[in-house]
Amino acid sequence: MEIPVVRNVLEANERISGQLKKLFADKGILALNLMSSPGAGKTTLLERTLRDLSEDYRMAVIEGDLQTDNDARRVAATGAQAVQINTQGGCHLDGSMVMAALEALNLEGIDILFIENVGNLVCPAEFSLGEDANVTILSVAEGDDKPEKYPLVFHVSKIMLLNKTDLLPYVDFDLGRAAGFARTANPEIKVFPLSARTGEGLAAWYDWLHTMRAAKSRA
Amino acid sequence: MEIPVVRNVLEANERISGQLKKLFADKGILALNLMSSPGAGKTTLLERTLRDLSEDYRMAVIEGDLQTDNDARRVAATGAQAVQINTQGGCHLDGSMVMAALEALNLEGIDILFIENVGNLVCPAEFSLGEDANVTILSVAEGDDKPEKYPLVFHVSKIMLLNKTDLLPYVDFDLGRAAGFARTANPEIKVFPLSARTGEGLAAWYDWLHTMRAAKSRA
Repeated sequence: MEIPVVRNVLEANERISGQLKKLFADKGILALNLMSSPGAGKTTLLERTLRDLSEDYRMAVIEGDLQTDNDARRVAATGAQAVQINTQGGCHLDGSMVMAALEALNLEGIDILFIENVGNLVCPAEFSLGEDANVTILSVAEGDDKPEKYPLVFHVSKIMLLNKTDLLPYVDFDLGRAAGFARTANPEIKVFPLSARTGEGLAAWYDWLHTMRAAKSRA
Repeated sequence: MEIPVVRNVLEANERISGQLKKLFADKGILALNLMSSPGAGKTTLLERTLRDLSEDYRMAVIEGDLQTDNDARRVAATGAQAVQINTQGGCHLDGSMVMAALEALNLEGIDILFIENVGNLVCPAEFSLGEDANVTILSVAEGDDKPEKYPLVFHVSKIMLLNKTDLLPYVDFDLGRAAGFARTANPEIKVFPLSARTGEGLAAWYDWLHTMRAAKSRA
Protein backbone atom coordinates (compact mmCIF):
# COMPACT_ATOMS: atom_id res chain seq x y z
CA MET A 1 0.00 0.00 0.00
CA GLU A 2 2.92 2.34 0.60
CA ILE A 3 4.88 1.49 -2.55
CA PRO A 4 2.73 3.40 -5.07
CA VAL A 5 3.05 6.53 -2.93
CA VAL A 6 6.82 6.29 -2.76
CA ARG A 7 6.99 5.69 -6.48
CA ASN A 8 4.92 8.82 -7.17
CA VAL A 9 7.17 10.92 -4.95
CA LEU A 10 10.28 9.61 -6.69
CA GLU A 11 8.77 10.04 -10.15
CA ALA A 12 7.78 13.61 -9.36
CA ASN A 13 11.30 14.27 -8.13
CA GLU A 14 12.86 12.81 -11.28
CA ARG A 15 10.84 15.24 -13.38
CA ILE A 16 12.00 18.27 -11.36
CA SER A 17 15.53 16.90 -11.25
CA GLY A 18 15.51 16.82 -15.06
CA GLN A 19 14.47 20.48 -15.14
CA LEU A 20 17.26 21.35 -12.73
CA LYS A 21 19.80 19.47 -14.84
CA LYS A 22 18.74 21.46 -17.92
CA LEU A 23 18.88 24.73 -15.98
CA PHE A 24 22.39 23.98 -14.70
CA ALA A 25 23.48 23.07 -18.26
CA ASP A 26 21.98 26.26 -19.71
CA LYS A 27 23.70 28.44 -17.13
CA GLY A 28 26.98 26.49 -17.27
CA ILE A 29 26.85 25.75 -13.55
CA LEU A 30 28.69 22.73 -12.12
CA ALA A 31 26.28 21.39 -9.47
CA LEU A 32 27.51 19.02 -6.74
CA ASN A 33 25.31 17.28 -4.17
CA LEU A 34 27.21 16.67 -0.90
CA MET A 35 25.89 13.87 1.28
CA SER A 36 27.07 12.36 4.59
CA SER A 37 26.08 11.35 8.10
CA PRO A 38 25.62 14.16 10.61
CA GLY A 39 29.00 15.48 11.70
CA ALA A 40 31.14 14.00 8.92
CA GLY A 41 32.45 17.48 8.18
CA LYS A 42 30.54 18.69 5.11
CA THR A 43 30.32 22.30 6.26
CA THR A 44 33.94 22.52 7.42
CA LEU A 45 35.07 21.08 4.07
CA LEU A 46 32.90 23.62 2.25
CA GLU A 47 34.22 26.55 4.29
CA ARG A 48 37.78 25.55 3.48
CA THR A 49 37.06 24.87 -0.20
CA LEU A 50 35.22 28.18 -0.67
CA ARG A 51 38.16 30.08 0.85
CA ASP A 52 40.91 28.15 -0.94
CA LEU A 53 39.30 28.40 -4.40
CA SER A 54 37.84 31.90 -4.08
CA GLU A 55 40.30 33.27 -6.68
CA ASP A 56 39.46 30.49 -9.14
CA TYR A 57 35.67 30.31 -9.17
CA ARG A 58 32.47 32.09 -8.28
CA MET A 59 30.77 29.62 -5.94
CA ALA A 60 27.39 29.37 -4.25
CA VAL A 61 25.95 27.05 -1.62
CA ILE A 62 22.49 25.70 -0.93
CA GLU A 63 22.41 24.49 2.67
CA GLY A 64 19.91 21.80 3.71
CA ASP A 65 19.07 21.43 7.40
CA LEU A 66 16.08 20.40 9.44
CA GLN A 67 15.61 23.79 11.04
CA THR A 68 18.67 25.95 11.80
CA ASP A 69 20.53 28.38 9.54
CA ASN A 70 23.90 27.93 11.27
CA ASP A 71 25.54 26.32 8.26
CA ALA A 72 24.37 28.95 5.77
CA ARG A 73 25.81 31.65 8.04
CA ARG A 74 29.11 29.76 8.25
CA VAL A 75 29.53 29.45 4.49
CA ALA A 76 28.24 33.01 3.83
CA ALA A 77 31.08 34.23 6.07
CA THR A 78 33.52 33.03 3.40
CA GLY A 79 31.98 35.52 0.96
CA ALA A 80 30.12 32.92 -1.12
CA GLN A 81 26.47 33.28 -2.03
CA ALA A 82 24.46 31.10 0.37
CA VAL A 83 20.84 30.13 0.82
CA GLN A 84 19.33 27.94 3.53
CA ILE A 85 16.61 25.32 3.03
CA ASN A 86 14.88 24.16 6.20
CA THR A 87 13.16 20.85 5.65
CA GLN A 88 11.10 21.17 8.87
CA GLY A 89 12.09 17.69 9.95
CA GLY A 90 12.33 16.15 6.50
CA CYS A 91 15.28 13.78 6.17
CA HIS A 92 16.57 14.88 2.74
CA LEU A 93 16.43 17.62 0.13
CA ASP A 94 14.35 17.13 -3.01
CA GLY A 95 14.30 18.77 -6.40
CA SER A 96 11.46 21.17 -5.61
CA MET A 97 13.30 22.51 -2.58
CA VAL A 98 16.41 23.15 -4.66
CA MET A 99 14.31 24.79 -7.40
CA ALA A 100 12.81 27.14 -4.80
CA ALA A 101 16.21 27.91 -3.28
CA LEU A 102 17.62 28.89 -6.70
CA GLU A 103 15.22 31.88 -6.71
CA ALA A 104 17.37 33.39 -3.97
CA LEU A 105 20.63 33.09 -5.94
CA ASN A 106 22.04 35.09 -8.83
CA LEU A 107 22.59 32.21 -11.25
CA GLU A 108 24.47 34.29 -13.84
CA GLY A 109 27.48 34.58 -11.60
CA ILE A 110 28.01 30.96 -10.51
CA ASP A 111 30.70 28.53 -11.67
CA ILE A 112 30.14 25.89 -8.99
CA LEU A 113 27.03 25.27 -6.92
CA PHE A 114 27.47 23.11 -3.82
CA ILE A 115 24.28 21.61 -2.43
CA GLU A 116 24.87 20.44 1.15
CA ASN A 117 22.21 17.86 1.86
CA VAL A 118 20.66 17.05 5.25
CA GLY A 119 23.05 14.99 7.40
CA ASN A 120 21.79 11.49 6.64
CA LEU A 121 23.45 8.54 4.92
CA VAL A 122 20.17 6.92 3.82
CA CYS A 123 17.35 9.10 2.47
CA PRO A 124 19.21 11.72 0.36
CA ALA A 125 20.64 8.99 -1.89
CA GLU A 126 17.23 8.36 -3.47
CA PHE A 127 16.53 11.93 -4.53
CA SER A 128 18.41 13.39 -7.47
CA LEU A 129 18.77 17.18 -7.41
CA GLY A 130 19.89 17.69 -11.00
CA GLU A 131 23.53 17.52 -9.90
CA ASP A 132 26.51 16.78 -12.16
CA ALA A 133 27.88 14.52 -9.44
CA ASN A 134 27.09 13.22 -5.99
CA VAL A 135 29.89 13.51 -3.46
CA THR A 136 29.73 11.40 -0.30
CA ILE A 137 31.82 12.36 2.71
CA LEU A 138 32.64 9.72 5.32
CA SER A 139 34.47 10.60 8.51
CA VAL A 140 37.06 8.05 9.61
CA ALA A 141 35.52 8.32 13.09
CA GLU A 142 32.40 6.59 11.70
CA GLY A 143 34.15 3.31 10.95
CA ASP A 144 35.39 1.62 7.78
CA ASP A 145 32.30 -0.63 7.53
CA LYS A 146 29.91 2.17 6.62
CA PRO A 147 30.11 1.80 2.81
CA GLU A 148 29.07 -1.84 3.29
CA LYS A 149 26.20 -0.96 5.63
CA TYR A 150 24.89 2.04 3.65
CA PRO A 151 25.78 1.12 0.05
CA LEU A 152 23.22 3.14 -1.94
CA VAL A 153 24.73 6.54 -1.21
CA PHE A 154 28.13 5.25 -2.37
CA HIS A 155 26.56 3.53 -5.37
CA VAL A 156 25.21 6.85 -6.66
CA SER A 157 28.34 8.92 -5.87
CA LYS A 158 31.24 9.75 -8.20
CA ILE A 159 33.63 10.23 -5.28
CA MET A 160 33.99 9.38 -1.61
CA LEU A 161 35.92 11.84 0.54
CA LEU A 162 37.35 10.11 3.63
CA ASN A 163 37.47 13.07 5.99
CA LYS A 164 39.14 13.61 9.37
CA THR A 165 42.28 11.64 8.49
CA ASP A 166 43.93 13.56 11.36
CA LEU A 167 41.96 11.20 13.66
CA LEU A 168 43.35 8.01 12.03
CA PRO A 169 45.89 7.38 14.83
CA TYR A 170 43.09 7.35 17.41
CA VAL A 171 40.40 5.24 15.74
CA ASP A 172 40.13 1.75 14.22
CA PHE A 173 39.77 2.58 10.56
CA ASP A 174 41.34 0.79 7.60
CA LEU A 175 41.38 3.05 4.52
CA GLY A 176 41.75 0.08 2.17
CA ARG A 177 38.83 -1.73 3.75
CA ALA A 178 36.57 1.32 3.45
CA ALA A 179 37.63 1.88 -0.15
CA GLY A 180 37.00 -1.80 -0.92
CA PHE A 181 33.45 -1.69 0.42
CA ALA A 182 32.81 1.56 -1.50
CA ARG A 183 34.07 -0.07 -4.72
CA THR A 184 31.79 -3.05 -4.15
CA ALA A 185 28.89 -0.58 -4.06
CA ASN A 186 30.30 1.34 -7.03
CA PRO A 187 33.35 0.07 -8.97
CA GLU A 188 33.86 3.53 -10.56
CA ILE A 189 34.00 5.52 -7.32
CA LYS A 190 37.10 7.65 -6.67
CA VAL A 191 38.37 7.76 -3.10
CA PHE A 192 40.20 10.75 -1.61
CA PRO A 193 41.42 10.63 2.00
CA LEU A 194 41.72 14.15 3.43
CA SER A 195 41.41 16.32 6.49
CA ALA A 196 39.39 19.52 6.11
CA ARG A 197 40.81 20.53 9.48
CA THR A 198 44.54 20.22 8.72
CA GLY A 199 44.37 20.59 4.94
CA GLU A 200 46.01 17.21 4.30
CA GLY A 201 44.85 15.67 1.03
CA LEU A 202 42.78 18.65 -0.12
CA ALA A 203 44.84 19.03 -3.32
CA ALA A 204 43.35 15.86 -4.82
CA TRP A 205 39.82 17.10 -4.09
CA TYR A 206 40.63 20.47 -5.67
CA ASP A 207 42.15 18.75 -8.71
CA TRP A 208 38.95 16.76 -9.11
CA LEU A 209 36.90 19.99 -8.88
CA HIS A 210 39.11 21.64 -11.51
CA THR A 211 38.67 18.66 -13.84
CA MET A 212 34.89 18.56 -13.33
CA ARG A 213 34.65 22.34 -13.83
CA ALA A 214 36.74 22.19 -17.01
CA ALA A 215 34.58 19.37 -18.42
CA LYS A 216 31.44 21.42 -17.70
CA SER A 217 32.90 24.44 -19.51
CA ARG A 218 33.50 22.37 -22.65
CA ALA A 219 30.02 20.85 -22.59
CA MET B 1 -1.03 15.58 -0.72
CA GLU B 2 1.70 13.75 1.14
CA ILE B 3 0.53 14.64 4.65
CA PRO B 4 -2.42 12.24 4.90
CA VAL B 5 -0.16 9.35 3.89
CA VAL B 6 2.43 10.18 6.51
CA ARG B 7 -0.25 10.57 9.11
CA ASN B 8 -1.69 7.15 8.29
CA VAL B 9 1.74 5.55 8.53
CA LEU B 10 2.38 7.20 11.90
CA GLU B 11 -1.09 6.32 13.19
CA ALA B 12 -0.65 2.70 12.15
CA ASN B 13 2.70 2.64 13.90
CA GLU B 14 1.24 4.12 17.10
CA ARG B 15 -1.29 1.29 17.23
CA ILE B 16 1.38 -1.40 16.89
CA SER B 17 3.64 0.47 19.29
CA GLY B 18 0.84 0.30 21.88
CA GLN B 19 0.62 -3.47 21.40
CA LEU B 20 4.37 -3.78 21.83
CA LYS B 21 4.28 -1.67 25.00
CA LYS B 22 1.60 -3.97 26.45
CA LEU B 23 3.58 -7.07 25.44
CA PHE B 24 6.76 -5.75 27.07
CA ALA B 25 4.77 -4.91 30.23
CA ASP B 26 3.15 -8.37 30.35
CA LYS B 27 6.52 -10.11 29.96
CA GLY B 28 8.33 -7.72 32.32
CA ILE B 29 10.85 -6.77 29.64
CA LEU B 30 12.68 -3.45 29.81
CA ALA B 31 12.81 -2.30 26.16
CA LEU B 32 15.26 0.38 25.04
CA ASN B 33 15.42 1.95 21.58
CA LEU B 34 18.98 3.02 20.69
CA MET B 35 19.28 5.74 18.05
CA SER B 36 22.25 7.60 16.55
CA SER B 37 23.99 8.66 13.36
CA PRO B 38 25.94 5.98 11.49
CA GLY B 39 29.17 5.23 13.29
CA ALA B 40 28.38 6.83 16.66
CA GLY B 41 29.21 3.54 18.34
CA LYS B 42 25.88 1.88 19.12
CA THR B 43 27.08 -1.64 18.39
CA THR B 44 30.38 -1.27 20.24
CA LEU B 45 28.50 0.10 23.26
CA LEU B 46 26.09 -2.82 23.08
CA GLU B 47 28.86 -5.41 22.83
CA ARG B 48 30.53 -3.96 25.90
CA THR B 49 27.27 -3.63 27.87
CA LEU B 50 26.18 -7.17 27.04
CA ARG B 51 29.53 -8.53 28.27
CA ASP B 52 29.80 -6.34 31.37
CA LEU B 53 26.23 -7.05 32.59
CA SER B 54 25.98 -10.68 31.51
CA GLU B 55 25.93 -11.84 35.15
CA ASP B 56 23.17 -9.39 36.07
CA TYR B 57 20.60 -9.77 33.33
CA ARG B 58 19.35 -11.91 30.48
CA MET B 59 19.58 -9.57 27.52
CA ALA B 60 18.49 -9.70 23.89
CA VAL B 61 19.10 -7.45 20.90
CA ILE B 62 17.09 -6.58 17.83
CA GLU B 63 19.47 -5.16 15.22
CA GLY B 64 18.16 -2.80 12.55
CA ASP B 65 20.22 -2.32 9.40
CA LEU B 66 19.55 -1.60 5.76
CA GLN B 67 20.89 -4.92 4.53
CA THR B 68 23.82 -6.56 6.36
CA ASP B 69 23.75 -8.82 9.41
CA ASN B 70 27.21 -7.78 10.65
CA ASP B 71 25.91 -6.15 13.80
CA ALA B 72 23.69 -9.07 14.82
CA ARG B 73 26.69 -11.39 14.46
CA ARG B 74 28.79 -9.04 16.61
CA VAL B 75 26.28 -8.93 19.46
CA ALA B 76 25.45 -12.64 19.19
CA ALA B 77 29.16 -13.31 19.80
CA THR B 78 28.67 -11.95 23.34
CA GLY B 79 26.22 -14.79 24.04
CA ALA B 80 23.10 -12.62 23.95
CA GLN B 81 20.03 -13.56 21.93
CA ALA B 82 20.13 -11.54 18.71
CA VAL B 83 17.87 -11.08 15.71
CA GLN B 84 18.52 -8.96 12.62
CA ILE B 85 15.96 -6.80 10.84
CA ASN B 86 16.93 -5.71 7.33
CA THR B 87 14.90 -2.71 6.25
CA GLN B 88 15.92 -3.12 2.56
CA GLY B 89 16.86 0.54 2.33
CA GLY B 90 14.27 1.87 4.78
CA CYS B 91 15.69 4.61 7.01
CA HIS B 92 14.21 3.51 10.36
CA LEU B 93 12.61 0.60 12.22
CA ASP B 94 8.87 0.61 12.81
CA GLY B 95 6.61 -1.26 15.19
CA SER B 96 5.61 -3.97 12.73
CA MET B 97 9.26 -4.84 12.07
CA VAL B 98 9.91 -5.17 15.79
CA MET B 99 6.74 -7.26 16.25
CA ALA B 100 7.96 -9.64 13.53
CA ALA B 101 11.46 -9.81 15.01
CA LEU B 102 10.07 -10.79 18.42
CA GLU B 103 8.88 -14.07 16.89
CA ALA B 104 12.52 -15.10 16.68
CA LEU B 105 13.24 -14.45 20.37
CA ASN B 106 12.37 -16.41 23.50
CA LEU B 107 10.57 -13.62 25.36
CA GLU B 108 10.24 -15.56 28.61
CA GLY B 109 13.94 -15.29 29.31
CA ILE B 110 14.56 -11.57 28.72
CA ASP B 111 15.19 -8.87 31.32
CA ILE B 112 16.39 -6.18 28.93
CA LEU B 113 15.71 -5.88 25.19
CA PHE B 114 17.96 -3.49 23.28
CA ILE B 115 16.61 -2.37 19.91
CA GLU B 116 19.43 -0.92 17.81
CA ASN B 117 17.79 1.30 15.23
CA VAL B 118 19.11 2.10 11.74
CA GLY B 119 21.98 4.61 11.90
CA ASN B 120 20.09 7.83 11.27
CA LEU B 121 19.53 10.88 13.46
CA VAL B 122 16.30 11.93 11.73
CA CYS B 123 13.73 9.29 10.73
CA PRO B 124 13.82 6.85 13.70
CA ALA B 125 12.75 9.60 16.11
CA GLU B 126 9.23 9.63 14.68
CA PHE B 127 8.49 5.93 15.10
CA SER B 128 7.81 4.58 18.58
CA LEU B 129 8.65 0.89 19.03
CA GLY B 130 6.86 0.33 22.34
CA GLU B 131 10.10 1.11 24.20
CA ASP B 132 10.35 2.10 27.87
CA ALA B 133 12.91 4.70 26.87
CA ASN B 134 14.70 6.09 23.87
CA VAL B 135 18.48 6.36 24.19
CA THR B 136 20.36 8.62 21.78
CA ILE B 137 24.08 8.16 21.29
CA LEU B 138 26.16 11.05 19.94
CA SER B 139 29.84 10.63 19.14
CA VAL B 140 32.01 13.60 20.12
CA ALA B 141 33.55 13.33 16.64
CA GLU B 142 30.19 14.49 15.21
CA GLY B 143 30.34 17.95 16.79
CA ASP B 144 28.63 19.60 19.77
CA ASP B 145 26.06 21.37 17.56
CA LYS B 146 24.20 18.19 16.58
CA PRO B 147 21.50 18.35 19.32
CA GLU B 148 20.64 21.84 18.03
CA LYS B 149 20.54 20.70 14.40
CA TYR B 150 18.66 17.42 14.97
CA PRO B 151 16.49 18.24 18.01
CA LEU B 152 13.62 15.74 17.65
CA VAL B 153 15.65 12.65 18.47
CA PHE B 154 16.91 14.32 21.65
CA HIS B 155 13.43 15.62 22.45
CA VAL B 156 12.05 12.08 22.56
CA SER B 157 15.02 10.53 24.42
CA LYS B 158 15.40 10.00 28.16
CA ILE B 159 19.18 10.03 27.95
CA MET B 160 21.98 11.15 25.65
CA LEU B 161 25.19 9.14 25.72
CA LEU B 162 28.15 11.24 24.55
CA ASN B 163 30.37 8.47 23.21
CA LYS B 164 34.03 8.38 22.13
CA THR B 165 35.21 10.73 24.89
CA ASP B 166 38.69 9.25 24.27
CA LEU B 167 38.70 11.44 21.11
CA LEU B 168 37.98 14.69 23.01
CA PRO B 169 41.65 15.85 22.92
CA TYR B 170 41.63 15.63 19.12
CA VAL B 171 38.30 17.25 18.18
CA ASP B 172 36.53 20.55 18.82
CA PHE B 173 33.73 19.45 21.11
CA ASP B 174 32.38 21.27 24.16
CA LEU B 175 30.49 18.85 26.43
CA GLY B 176 28.60 21.69 28.14
CA ARG B 177 27.53 23.16 24.80
CA ALA B 178 26.23 19.78 23.55
CA ALA B 179 24.39 19.18 26.84
CA GLY B 180 22.90 22.68 26.68
CA PHE B 181 21.51 22.12 23.18
CA ALA B 182 20.15 18.72 24.23
CA ARG B 183 18.41 20.29 27.24
CA THR B 184 16.87 22.95 25.00
CA ALA B 185 15.35 20.11 22.98
CA ASN B 186 14.41 18.22 26.17
CA PRO B 187 14.87 19.80 29.63
CA GLU B 188 14.56 16.36 31.31
CA ILE B 189 17.27 14.61 29.31
CA LYS B 190 20.14 13.00 31.23
CA VAL B 191 23.60 13.29 29.74
CA PHE B 192 26.34 10.68 30.23
CA PRO B 193 29.76 11.21 28.63
CA LEU B 194 31.50 7.87 28.10
CA SER B 195 33.84 5.86 25.91
CA ALA B 196 32.65 2.40 24.92
CA ARG B 197 36.22 1.81 23.72
CA THR B 198 38.13 2.60 26.93
CA GLY B 199 35.31 2.00 29.42
CA GLU B 200 35.47 5.52 30.84
CA GLY B 201 32.07 6.68 32.12
CA LEU B 202 30.27 3.36 31.58
CA ALA B 203 29.39 3.07 35.30
CA ALA B 204 26.83 5.90 35.05
CA TRP B 205 25.18 4.20 32.05
CA TYR B 206 25.05 0.91 33.92
CA ASP B 207 23.61 2.63 37.02
CA TRP B 208 20.91 4.11 34.82
CA LEU B 209 20.16 0.65 33.38
CA HIS B 210 19.97 -0.84 36.89
CA THR B 211 17.53 1.90 37.96
CA MET B 212 15.36 1.48 34.88
CA ARG B 213 15.37 -2.31 35.27
CA ALA B 214 14.44 -2.06 38.95
CA ALA B 215 11.57 0.33 38.17
CA LYS B 216 10.29 -2.09 35.53
CA SER B 217 10.37 -5.00 38.01
CA ARG B 218 8.20 -3.08 40.46
CA ALA B 219 5.68 -2.02 37.81
